Amino acid sequence: MAVVQELLNISTRGQGTTEVTREVARIVERSGLRTGTVTVFCQHTSCSLVIMENADPSARRDLEGWLDRLVPPDDPHFTHTYEGPDDMPSHIKMSLTRTSEVVAFGDGELLLGTWQGIFLWEHRTAAHRRRLVVTVVGE
Amino acid sequence: MAVVQELLNISTRGQGTTEVTREVARIVERSGLRTGTVTVFCQHTSCSLVIMENADPSARRDLEGWLDRLVPPDDPHFTHTYEGPDDMPSHIKMSLTRTSEVVAFGDGELLLGTWQGIFLWEHRTAAHRRRLVVTVVGE
Amino acid sequence: MAVVQELLNISTRGQGTTEVTREVARIVERSGLRTGTVTVFCQHTSCSLVIMENADPSARRDLEGWLDRLVPPDDPHFTHTYEGPDDMPSHIKMSLTRTSEVVAFGDGELLLGTWQGIFLWEHRTAAHRRRLVVTVVGE
Repeated sequence: MAVVQELLNISTRGQGTTEVTREVARIVERSGLRTGTVTVFCQHTSCSLVIMENADPSARRDLEGWLDRLVPPDDPHFTHTYEGPDDMPSHIKMSLTRTSEVVAFGDGELLLGTWQGIFLWEHRTAAHRRRLVVTVVGE
Repeated sequence: MAVVQELLNISTRGQGTTEVTREVARIVERSGLRTGTVTVFCQHTSCSLVIMENADPSARRDLEGWLDRLVPPDDPHFTHTYEGPDDMPSHIKMSLTRTSEVVAFGDGELLLGTWQGIFLWEHRTAAHRRRLVVTVVGE
Repeated sequence: MAVVQELLNISTRGQGTTEVTREVARIVERSGLRTGTVTVFCQHTSCSLVIMENADPSARRDLEGWLDRLVPPDDPHFTHTYEGPDDMPSHIKMSLTRTSEVVAFGDGELLLGTWQGIFLWEHRTAAHRRRLVVTVVGE
């Protein structure tokens, strides 16, 4: 048994999903571990993680559009607005999705389903540099 | 320290929750490990996991009904619809719940609360065969 | 590699978020482990966990208010109501947030982002005693 940890820096272009599956898979490969779990941890409260269909981009666009309508930026109840109208919706969208995703791996490969990809979901309007901590535990 | 991994095949009957607590507990028992965490990972993007009350089925029915009303199948904004009107709502419901659940165990037993059960939540209308990867890490 | 497990008892004052970051960090310190993941597992179905901004309390208040409006207690569709009008909304809010949070640690310290705190989110109106199981896995 061993643990291997790496940082992953991701540049986002503002609202939307960025696939990080390949980067996570490479960290598992480099660890040399064969069986276990890899935890992707997002160090932010205005972006989040989701495992989503990675074949047809329309599925992610529809998901993003639906969440935008559920959490509109102009909600008059918001008081935490000093970073702009996308500040509070970003925190809410993060809370409704995930800060960490734990993915199983076997034979040294991620055990994702056929259509699954790991995505960083930027909720802010502006581009950001984001940090993920990837921790591989296994043998 | 050791890691033990097993696949779990679950048949669903269409929309609704199927309890998998006993199956996960048996995998922990078979592992022979006494203390650690067990990660249940769902290999799909149109069903998900949730840990929910397992005593009174009305709690799960109300939860399912509420989510159905939040994400109705006839949303005119959806473009990703070629698998039918339940396609896009399934992805959204999955994103709002969980792809993996990590449960602690001690003395070889799941440390669930009195009313907690682990459920696979099928979001598609049709019956499906679903795969979960269960990874036990501990000593 | 080793695993260390501790229980954390938290008293809540009814609806709202209680920060547990320091308590989790201390368990990681006491474990003596340097690199790995710590899993916080909530043993209840009417409260949950979330990693949220811990600097400005207005962000958490806005998040709580938004979720209250999304899941109002007087929804006439609810049938699971024998514990009161906050019973079913508590289960729904729990399902939309998290039962477990997995946080990376390195050099013996939680690798949280600058603004991240770990919170227990009480969804019931009344004060409760809640139990979290904290499991540290690493080396």
